[in-house]
Amino acid sequence: MKPLLKQIQHTPLLWMLIFVPVVLVAEAVVPHSHTLLFALSVLAIVPLAALLSHATEAVAAKTGDTVGGLLNATLGNLTELVIAITALRVGQYMLVKASIAGAIVTNALFMLGACLLLGGLRYHVQEYNRAGARLYSGLLLMATVALLAPSAVAHLDLMQGEAVMRKLSVGLAILLIIAYALGLLFSLKTHKELFASAEHGEGEERWPIGLAVGTLLVVTVLVALVSEIFVESVQKAAETFGMSPAFVGFIIVSLVALGSASQIALFVAPALVLLSYVVGPSPMSLQFWPGAVTMVMIATVTASFITSSGRSAWFVGALLIFIYAVFALTLYVVPPAGQGTG
Amino acid sequence: MKPLLKQIQHTPLLWMLIFVPVVLVAEAVVPHSHTLLFALSVLAIVPLAALLSHATEAVAAKTGDTVGGLLNATLGNLTELVIAITALRVGQYMLVKASIAGAIVTNALFMLGACLLLGGLRYHVQEYNRAGARLYSGLLLMATVALLAPSAVAHLDLMQGEAVMRKLSVGLAILLIIAYALGLLFSLKTHKELFASAEHGEGEERWPIGLAVGTLLVVTVLVALVSEIFVESVQKAAETFGMSPAFVGFIIVSLVALGSASQIALFVAPALVLLSYVVGPSPMSLQFWPGAVTMVMIATVTASFITSSGRSAWFVGALLIFIYAVFALTLYVVPPAGQGTG
Amino acid sequence: MKPLLKQIQHTPLLWMLIFVPVVLVAEAVVPHSHTLLFALSVLAIVPLAALLSHATEAVAAKTGDTVGGLLNATLGNLTELVIAITALRVGQYMLVKASIAGAIVTNALFMLGACLLLGGLRYHVQEYNRAGARLYSGLLLMATVALLAPSAVAHLDLMQGEAVMRKLSVGLAILLIIAYALGLLFSLKTHKELFASAEHGEGEERWPIGLAVGTLLVVTVLVALVSEIFVESVQKAAETFGMSPAFVGFIIVSLVALGSASQIALFVAPALVLLSYVVGPSPMSLQFWPGAVTMVMIATVTASFITSSGRSAWFVGALLIFIYAVFALTLYVVPPAGQGTG
Repeated sequence: MKPLLKQIQHTPLLWMLIFVPVVLVAEAVVPHSHTLLFALSVLAIVPLAALLSHATEAVAAKTGDTVGGLLNATLGNLTELVIAITALRVGQYMLVKASIAGAIVTNALFMLGACLLLGGLRYHVQEYNRAGARLYSGLLLMATVALLAPSAVAHLDLMQGEAVMRKLSVGLAILLIIAYALGLLFSLKTHKELFASAEHGEGEERWPIGLAVGTLLVVTVLVALVSEIFVESVQKAAETFGMSPAFVGFIIVSLVALGSASQIALFVAPALVLLSYVVGPSPMSLQFWPGAVTMVMIATVTASFITSSGRSAWFVGALLIFIYAVFALTLYVVPPAGQGTG
Repeated sequence: MKPLLKQIQHTPLLWMLIFVPVVLVAEAVVPHSHTLLFALSVLAIVPLAALLSHATEAVAAKTGDTVGGLLNATLGNLTELVIAITALRVGQYMLVKASIAGAIVTNALFMLGACLLLGGLRYHVQEYNRAGARLYSGLLLMATVALLAPSAVAHLDLMQGEAVMRKLSVGLAILLIIAYALGLLFSLKTHKELFASAEHGEGEERWPIGLAVGTLLVVTVLVALVSEIFVESVQKAAETFGMSPAFVGFIIVSLVALGSASQIALFVAPALVLLSYVVGPSPMSLQFWPGAVTMVMIATVTASFITSSGRSAWFVGALLIFIYAVFALTLYVVPPAGQGTG
Repeated sequence: MKPLLKQIQHTPLLWMLIFVPVVLVAEAVVPHSHTLLFALSVLAIVPLAALLSHATEAVAAKTGDTVGGLLNATLGNLTELVIAITALRVGQYMLVKASIAGAIVTNALFMLGACLLLGGLRYHVQEYNRAGARLYSGLLLMATVALLAPSAVAHLDLMQGEAVMRKLSVGLAILLIIAYALGLLFSLKTHKELFASAEHGEGEERWPIGLAVGTLLVVTVLVALVSEIFVESVQKAAETFGMSPAFVGFIIVSLVALGSASQIALFVAPALVLLSYVVGPSPMSLQFWPGAVTMVMIATVTASFITSSGRSAWFVGALLIFIYAVFALTLYVVPPAGQGTG
């Protein structure tokens, strides 16, 4: 336990773990204070997500390159996945889809923008490795195109649509998971040198494997418990604040549960479609509302274009964050119609 | 006055200033010959816009880099702004929006195409500075995305739309003007070397500051007077020629009042939304008709892609102009429905 | 005849020419076995298209650079053109439009993907000539934008649409053919060195000009005869297999009759519009169904982006093919509504 406690001590973000017992107690004491429970559950998920990500890396570091990479690639979006499964079980499909689309947009605009802005405040003009950036942004572009193609292409009338879209979604989910498996082969085996990062923090104390696996399991259970409270309270709390489920999923879920955009597109989204047949009240399709399709496409094309230029300055980052703010404002003021359909 | 007269003498375009008194007289004598007044006002605005641009530069040259840059950035689209305010005052919102969208498309396709075509006729393959071109086209791409995002994303039914879109437009206008202010900080202060151009015509005679400011003021008043006649006559003249207000705004206004595409997106458009609360009969939103959104997005993405390649030949320019012609043809044959709504 | 027979002997694909007499006999004997006739006609068109392409090159090789290039550019999509004219004559407009859109998408995704995948299996990371690739993909992007602009921009209600769209299509067809002529001037005259390819197979036996022209004529007639059977049987056979004309045109026609994407956009498509006034039961417009517009735009932007990076690995090719599979799946499951309208 010592390395874990030391980690918590040195990371102010993890001090927010105090909200985990607080929200669990609050749920027992005041189960109808939805706004309070919503706020507390968001505050509790943030440090849990950070700890989960750290535990995953600790396990991966002990298991060698290939298995470790596989673990990272599968558990890297665990928080997002657990929240989405909880929402799936109670049929909150709009929240699920909004969190999928939002995760991609938040990565491509907000995270990239923040990196370029902060980097730009330190360096006058940043030059970065174009070869890697271009290949990576090409993969992200293609992953989102594959995910969104049916929503963009199939203009359905509402009656006919349901059954057809369901059939299409299952076929697409299987294709996406095959592409994901090929992508793992590509990034962990045949071309792993392109994805190598220099982030092996040598100074950090290594966790023993038992502690790492234990933390991983315990934190996953805690995320599941808190997600339950989050999903229960979100609908009513959102009404209080005038937020739609689409806004909550798109902005809030994706900000508390940051992951990798292409993993979301190729693995989390299709996994949720297939899981919906097991855990959901009815099957979920991959049909996104038109505004989501437009936002994800704009975000990915813009990010690809900016990344591929290989040069950046602070204003580029500021404009990316700014486009994100425009999307958030639009989604807040004009929630998509027909929420909650499969 | 001598440098001004000399300037006019040496610039054949400015000889068209003769149409300014002609149109003012014609308005007094034959106020109902709309077609004639329309043609004369277009012919009068062209040299006024050129003179206004020259006077702005003359003032800017006297005031040092930062203030001068600020003046250029603010008054660079003065003709466009004056015409749009005149149209705003009489509630011609379709003309205003079409001239905003048209200014961006005309810059990105027609002006860029003409430059590449003319350059291509002289040089077999043109190579140009990629670093600057990429950064600049990235900024233009992001500015138009920010401007158009709500129109692209918010699929509104007509009833609910009006009030919501108005609220969204004001929020967006404020965000855009903040981005514009940051952009000025970026281009005039922190990264001014990226935007430095070598166009200081040393051979040109400098205007005294009094003449420069005087010309600026007088020409602005003249543009306002002629714009009044232009906007009054355009509706009826357009009917005679079978042109919609959208076509006139998109093609004609933007060709006579060329400016900078990113300034239009980040400054002129939001300024007009906020001004509409003061001068217009009713508030104007930033909701563009779907075809305008598509045209502006296609134009900006195509221009960004072409510019970022850093190489060009005459046929590239010809194809850009050609896409512009296709847009003009489409807009002429199929005017957008629901013209004149706020 | 000897070089022709030798060619057939050494090219296993051409052994499929046996299906040409088979399908002609089958049409006479069992004219109502639509499924059989459909399958046999597809099997017969594949080797005919290959032979036609070889004969065109043989004629072009004999006639010098400019005339040869002109021949290649005009007859390079002869199979596609003959099939489309046959479909035009019986008013199968959805099949025609789907084969135009499909030819572009199949080139941009499937063919490019297959090249990158196969190249990637041999070379770890492929680097290729960026300058040429960028210029070429810019041209393709602009050609498709020009072709699709009216469909993307003009949001018509169905009543008003027919006559207006027809007028627009004729104007557009003329503009496209002018652009095509300028493109020939560009690629065959002013900038021919950019398009020079090293594919002069010196080892191959040259055909005498008589044999080349004779083969060209005979094979064109055979393609026309087999196309007749193909178009007749396709509607009924497609029903049996649950395929829409859109799916058949988009996937099957474009796979059997591969050509050049920009030629299709700038020459074949406008030629068919103009021809429809002569051979069709009613004029054909260039209005594509919304899904086709989206697919072609996504395919061209993705291909341009991937090509312009100048680097590739096998997974990039796999993802392109995979997006193609997603499109095919979507089109199979959700055929576009309103098939067969002009």
